[in-house]
Amino acid sequence: MINSVPFSKVIIGDGFWKDRQKLNHDVTIHAVRDRFTDTGRFEAFKFNWEEGKPNKPHFFWDSDVAKWLESVAYIIEKEPDALLESQVDEVVDLIEKNQGEDGYFNIYFTVCEPDKRFSNRDWHELYCAGHLTEAAVAYYNATGKDKFLKCMCKYIDYIEKVFKIDNSAAFKTPGHEEIELALVKLYHCTGEKRYLELSKYFIDKRGCQKEIPDDFWANDIYYQSHKPCREQLTAEGHSVRACYLYSGMADIAREYNDAELLNACEHIFDDIYNHKMFVTAGIGQSHHGEAFTVPYDLQNDMAYTETCASIALVYFAARLQQLKLDSRYGDVIERAIYNGILSGVSIDGKSFFYENPLEILLSEHGRNVSVRNRDDRHPITQRLEVFGCSCCPPNITRFIASIGDYIYGVDEKTVYVHQFITSNAEFDGIRLMQKSGYPYDGNIVIKAEKLNGKKLAVRIPAYSKDNFSISADYEIKNGYAFIGAADGEEIKISLDVSPKKVYANPLVDRDSGKCAILAGPIVYCAEGCDNGSHLRMFRIPEKLEYKFEKNEKLGTVDVILNAEKAERTETLYSFDKKYVPADIRLIPYFAFANRGESDMAVWLISK
Amino acid sequence: MINSVPFSKVIIGDGFWKDRQKLNHDVTIHAVRDRFTDTGRFEAFKFNWEEGKPNKPHFFWDSDVAKWLESVAYIIEKEPDALLESQVDEVVDLIEKNQGEDGYFNIYFTVCEPDKRFSNRDWHELYCAGHLTEAAVAYYNATGKDKFLKCMCKYIDYIEKVFKIDNSAAFKTPGHEEIELALVKLYHCTGEKRYLELSKYFIDKRGCQKEIPDDFWANDIYYQSHKPCREQLTAEGHSVRACYLYSGMADIAREYNDAELLNACEHIFDDIYNHKMFVTAGIGQSHHGEAFTVPYDLQNDMAYTETCASIALVYFAARLQQLKLDSRYGDVIERAIYNGILSGVSIDGKSFFYENPLEILLSEHGRNVSVRNRDDRHPITQRLEVFGCSCCPPNITRFIASIGDYIYGVDEKTVYVHQFITSNAEFDGIRLMQKSGYPYDGNIVIKAEKLNGKKLAVRIPAYSKDNFSISADYEIKNGYAFIGAADGEEIKISLDVSPKKVYANPLVDRDSGKCAILAGPIVYCAEGCDNGSHLRMFRIPEKLEYKFEKNEKLGTVDVILNAEKAERTETLYSFDKKYVPADIRLIPYFAFANRGESDMAVWLISK
Repeated sequence: MINSVPFSKVIIGDGFWKDRQKLNHDVTIHAVRDRFTDTGRFEAFKFNWEEGKPNKPHFFWDSDVAKWLESVAYIIEKEPDALLESQVDEVVDLIEKNQGEDGYFNIYFTVCEPDKRFSNRDWHELYCAGHLTEAAVAYYNATGKDKFLKCMCKYIDYIEKVFKIDNSAAFKTPGHEEIELALVKLYHCTGEKRYLELSKYFIDKRGCQKEIPDDFWANDIYYQSHKPCREQLTAEGHSVRACYLYSGMADIAREYNDAELLNACEHIFDDIYNHKMFVTAGIGQSHHGEAFTVPYDLQNDMAYTETCASIALVYFAARLQQLKLDSRYGDVIERAIYNGILSGVSIDGKSFFYENPLEILLSEHGRNVSVRNRDDRHPITQRLEVFGCSCCPPNITRFIASIGDYIYGVDEKTVYVHQFITSNAEFDGIRLMQKSGYPYDGNIVIKAEKLNGKKLAVRIPAYSKDNFSISADYEIKNGYAFIGAADGEEIKISLDVSPKKVYANPLVDRDSGKCAILAGPIVYCAEGCDNGSHLRMFRIPEKLEYKFEKNEKLGTVDVILNAEKAERTETLYSFDKKYVPADIRLIPYFAFANRGESDMAVWLISK
Repeated sequence: MINSVPFSKVIIGDGFWKDRQKLNHDVTIHAVRDRFTDTGRFEAFKFNWEEGKPNKPHFFWDSDVAKWLESVAYIIEKEPDALLESQVDEVVDLIEKNQGEDGYFNIYFTVCEPDKRFSNRDWHELYCAGHLTEAAVAYYNATGKDKFLKCMCKYIDYIEKVFKIDNSAAFKTPGHEEIELALVKLYHCTGEKRYLELSKYFIDKRGCQKEIPDDFWANDIYYQSHKPCREQLTAEGHSVRACYLYSGMADIAREYNDAELLNACEHIFDDIYNHKMFVTAGIGQSHHGEAFTVPYDLQNDMAYTETCASIALVYFAARLQQLKLDSRYGDVIERAIYNGILSGVSIDGKSFFYENPLEILLSEHGRNVSVRNRDDRHPITQRLEVFGCSCCPPNITRFIASIGDYIYGVDEKTVYVHQFITSNAEFDGIRLMQKSGYPYDGNIVIKAEKLNGKKLAVRIPAYSKDNFSISADYEIKNGYAFIGAADGEEIKISLDVSPKKVYANPLVDRDSGKCAILAGPIVYCAEGCDNGSHLRMFRIPEKLEYKFEKNEKLGTVDVILNAEKAERTETLYSFDKKYVPADIRLIPYFAFANRGESDMAVWLISK
C-alpha cells in the first residue's frame, strides 16, 4: 500500500505548474465565480427563487458551486486569501441557514420541486451531496472551520437513514456516482466509520436490482448498473460517472482489502488503457451518453472526451497507484494533466472546453446542409466562459489547485516520485526536493534527505524507458527506477523529451496510416492558423528532424518539423501522389483554439 | 451532338454482361416480381384495397411496379418471352380499367386518400407518373402495343392541365424529380411537342418560388429548389432526385440548345466528379436526406451511395456524353456499371442493396451500447430480397436489360466506342463488332464496316491513358483515340488492366494514408471472410506484386497481393510499428457480401 503524499505537504516551485496555479488563483477562480454569479448559481443558495423569476436553479447547480468552494479551499490552504475565504463563508452560512431540519440539502428539490425529493435516480441529488461533502472536508482541512463539515455530516446522516436504514427512496444507488469517493474522504476526516460503510453499501448494492424504467433514454450500462460492481470488468457508460464510481471502488478495495473489487478495478483500468483512451488521456468516446463505446472506436473529430472525464480518470489512476506499483498509472496521470485536462482551460484562464476533440475539420461542419436540424453534432471549436451544464470549469480549478496530490508517494520501504514537478515536500520526517524545466526539459534533479532507511524510486515514463540516464545505480521494477543513492545525494535524471512518433494500435481505424507527435508527456497538434487549413495534406517523415521554438503568444514551446505536404490535385482520385518538403509547426495540444477558429489535428499522415 | 446508339440496335455477345443479362432475365426479373407480389404491389393495381386489409398501398408503389414493367419491356425487346409479356399486359389492363376519367392514375391517391391528390409536393405522384410513362414508352417500343402509351398520354395531358394550364395543384414542380426526363422520352416516342414543353416548364419553374413549409424536415436544397435550375452549379440534396433532375436538364439543354442549362449541368457534373463521388461511382454521401454533402466528405463506412443514385448518375453522364466529347463521362459510366451499380444485386441475382457502403467494420456496430435507440446508423451488411422502399431492385433490372444503350455513339463524322462490351451493332448502315474478355482482360478487338467516311473513335479509360496500344494510327482528342484505320480493318486495342493503387485527394480525410486497388474499371475490396477481420491491419506496398486468381464461388477474378500486415500490439499506443509480409485476397467490390456477414474495406493502408 503506497500512501500518496497530500498536496498540503508539497510546495510547488517555480515552473510549469506554479504558473498554472498562479493563473488559477489570480484569474480562473474569479472568472468561474463571476460567471456563476451571472447565471444565478450563487444567488440560488439563498433559496429565494420563485416561479417567474429568472435563473431557475438546476438540480446540479449545488455541485457546480461545491466544486468552486472546494477549489477555494485548496487554494487558500496553500496561499491564504481573505476575500476568497469570506466568499466561501457566505455560502456556508446560507447552507447552514437553508438546510432542512432533517439534514436534507438541495436547492432545486427544496425550492422548485419539494415533492420530488429522492424520486428520480437521474436527478443528481447524491452527486450534489458528494461534491458538497468533498468541499466541506477540504474547507475544514484548509481552515479548521467545521460549520460546513457539520452541515454535511448531518446531510449524510440523513442520506444514510433514507437509503440504508429506512430504504425509503425511489431508487437504491446513485444515478450519477461521486458520493462513494466523497464518503471515504468524510470518513478519513471525521473518523466516523458509518460513512465508509455507507460508501461500501452503495457499491455493494449497485447493479443488483433494476433501478430505471425500460423506456428511459439510457440503459443500465450507461449507469454502470448492468452488473454488480465486482463483476464489472470493462469501462462502460457515462465516462465521468464511471470513473467516479471506479475511484470509489478502488477506495473501498483499499479500505476493506477487497480483492474482488481490486480485480474489477484493474480489469477496468486495463480496458481503458488498452482500448478506450485517446492519446491525450481523453475518455468518453461518444457524445451519445457521454459514454465509453467499443474498443478501438476513437473518432478524433467526434471525440467527446469531457474535461471532467480526464480528471475522473486521474482520480481512478491515482487510487490504483496506491494499491499497486505500476508506472502505467503515473503515465496516464501525466498524459492527462498535460493534455486532456489542461486543454479544458484557455491560455488566459477565462474560458473552458467541456469536450476536447482531437481534430477540427471546419470544412466538414455543416455537412448535412440539405436537411433541417440534422447536422452532425461536432464539438464546439472555441472555449466558452460558462455552460448550462458547467461542471468542468470548477473541476479544473480544484484539480490545478491540488495537483500536488499526484507527485509523491510513500510506503514502508520506499519513497516514490510519481510526477516531475518542481517542488519541495516534507512528510514522515522525510525531505524531498526536485527541480527541472519539465515538461520541456528532461533533466531533473532530485534530492531526498532523512530517508530513514527508505529507498527512493522514480517513475520512468514509458516514452523514455529505452533512453534515460540516472546519476546513481538503479534497478527497474514495475516501471520505477529504485535508486541506490546515499541519503541527501543529489540525483540527476535525464529523460528523453525529444519529439517522437506515436502510432495507434492497427485496430484503430481513425488513426490508421497516421501518427501523433509527443515530446515527453506533451501531445502536440497542428493548427490551421499556423499551417493553413486541411492539415491532412501534411505527411510526417519516417525520421523526424525538428527544432523547438518558443511561442511567446501561447507561452509554449512549439516543435517545427521538416515534414512533407501533398500537392493538391484537381481530381478526386489519381494514380499517383506527390509530396513536397514543407515545415509544419506543432503546438502543445493543451494550447489549441487560443487564436481563433481553426482546423486542428493531433493525428497526421505518417510515412 | 453525339447520338447514343440505343440498345435495340446492339446485340450483347458472350461475356461479362451477357452473363448478367441472362441472370437478370432468368432469375432477377422473376425474383423482383415474386417479392412485389408477396408485398401486394401487383394486387394494388386492382384498386381493391380497403381499410383493415393488409398491404396498404404506398404512394410510391406505382413507380416500383412501373420500373419492373419497363424492365420487362427491355428484356422482351431483345428476347421475346410470352409469360413476362402476359404479366405486363395484365397490369396494363388494370391501369386502363382503373385510370380516372380525367386521366389521373395513382393507386394510393385514388384508393386510400382520394382527397389528397396533388396536395403535397413530397408525395411522389409526378415521380410515379414519370416512371409509368417511361415504362409505357418502353413497352410500346418493345411490342408496338399502344394501350399503355395511350393511358399515359392521357395522364400526362391531365398533368399538363393541372400544373401548366390551370396551375391548380398545391405545388408547382415535382418534389421527387423524374418526370422531366420521362416527358422527353414521351415526346420522342409520340412526336407531341407539348410533352417536351411540359418538361421544360417544370425545369424553368423549379427554384423560382417557395414550395415547402418552413417546418418541414428537409429544406429547399434537399429538393434542388434553392435556386432556379440554370443557377445551380453544384450537386445538392437527395442524390437520386438530383441526378434525375440533372438528366432532365441535360435533355432540355440538348433539345433547346440551351447554353445556360448546359453550363449548369457541366458545373454540377464537375462538382460530383471532383468532390462528391466515391471511387465506386457511388453518390449521396449521407443518409440524412440520402443527400450530397460537402466536398471531400466521403465516409466509407457510413456511405449512403444508393444503387438508384449510381444509376441516375449514369443517366446524367450519358446525356452529357451526347452533348460534349469528354472521356470523363464514359469513365464515370464505366466505374458505375462495374461497381456502385452492380454491387446492388447479389451474385445469385435474388437480393439487393439499397445502400452500398465502402467499408464494413463489424466491431464498431453497436458502438453506442449504453443508450437506447441511439445506435449509429450503419448501412445493412447483407442484401435483402425486398425493401419497404424497394426502388433499387427494379431499377437494376431495367438498367442491366438496357446496358446496350451506353456502348456506342455516332455523329456526323465519327462513330464512338464508349464502353468495352462484347457486342455487335448496326445503325445508320454502319456495322460494328467488338470482342474482348473485358473487364478482366484488356485486349479488345474492334471492327467497323461501312463507315461511309466516318472515323472510329474509342474511349481510352483514364486508368490506361499512359499505357495502351492500338494496332493502327490514332490521335487522342478529349480522351478518345481517333483511329485512322481502313473500313473493315480489325483493330486491336490493348488496355492496361493490371492492378493499380489509386489515391484520393489529400483533402479526403477518410482515405488519408490509404489507397484503393483498381484493376481496369473494377474497384477491388478485401473481405474479412478471406483475410480475417480488421482489414486495416494490412498495408499495401509501394510497388504491387500480384497474381490474378479465378474465384469459382463468386465467378470473379480475384487479385492476390503481396501485402504486409501490422503486428498486433497489446497496447493502444506505441512508439514503433511492425509489419510482416502477408498476402491479401481482393475481390471485385461488386461481389462483396455474398458469403455471409464480414468486415469489408475498399480503402486500405498504403505504404
